Amino acid sequence: MKKVTLIKPVPLTAHAFAAFGNVIEVSSQGESKSINHGNTIRYHDLAALDLMAKGGKPSVNIFRSSPLSRPVMIHQMERHPLSSQLFFPLGNKPYLVVVAPKGDFNFKDIQAFLATAHQGVNYHPGVWHHYSLALDGVSDFLVIDRLGPDENCQEVSLRDDELVCVGY
Amino acid sequence: MKKVTLIKPVPLTAHAFAAFGNVIEVSSQGESKSINHGNTIRYHDLAALDLMAKGGKPSVNIFRSSPLSRPVMIHQMERHPLSSQLFFPLGNKPYLVVVAPKGDFNFKDIQAFLATAHQGVNYHPGVWHHYSLALDGVSDFLVIDRLGPDENCQEVSLRDDELVCVGY
Repeated sequence: MKKVTLIKPVPLTAHAFAAFGNVIEVSSQGESKSINHGNTIRYHDLAALDLMAKGGKPSVNIFRSSPLSRPVMIHQMERHPLSSQLFFPLGNKPYLVVVAPKGDFNFKDIQAFLATAHQGVNYHPGVWHHYSLALDGVSDFLVIDRLGPDENCQEVSLRDDELVCVGY
Repeated sequence: MKKVTLIKPVPLTAHAFAAFGNVIEVSSQGESKSINHGNTIRYHDLAALDLMAKGGKPSVNIFRSSPLSRPVMIHQMERHPLSSQLFFPLGNKPYLVVVAPKGDFNFKDIQAFLATAHQGVNYHPGVWHHYSLALDGVSDFLVIDRLGPDENCQEVSLRDDELVCVGY
């Protein structure tokens, strides 16, 4: 018999997400300054990029993701042990973020966040996460990750009695 | 007497912009592949990032820019000799890109491009450019540039008889 654990996404905040990575957003919390003769506010250095281990270098990509059917069933998670990975949504669509802590994977530790169209996420190295989860039709994300010579993606599959369903 | 040169922006294309930098966009021209079990297309490595010279490291920022009054008058340009600088618009607003070639600055070489909401630009090191030019209200841009110990922004001011007006 399949057993399914139902979880509900909570709003994405920097505080709630701190163990998993950075939330990239306009906020009064971080460093900001007026530049360009007063025409621009620079919200400064919003992500702990970690992309250069073992001969890596930063790369910029666009991911065009199709939504999964709902409710969203979590079958796999992945991690990048050597590097951070940043997603910022392009356009005006919210999306789901599903993560589990660094270290040994346990499906019971999975958490889900609902991100607005104005929030990006930067996963710290080694943090388990689901691949990009568009919600409202095909969605583009700007992705900053590592190009390098080493294999840097590990996947784990949830067993049939471990499945997690994100109730959204 | 003030003399003003009027230029018209042309649509931003990778070909027309090649001397100045990269256009970051979904395109059939570059490398792409299906990932995430078929749910995502990855448009791969879209920008020649150059951020690590002289102890530099990549940083991610949000620039919140107010539009200038129209027609847009070009009074200054800037360049970053040590690094590339990437802008991607957040939301659904077009914007202006105003550039001049690397090397000695000449106002007669200024070119203007009209970028869609789905196009980013990555200026090559040393390329003269105007700061971010929102058109349609206050606009946010995700910016990838260099953090480093050295001064890396040079400005040039156009003389009164050199002013350029972007007719848009």
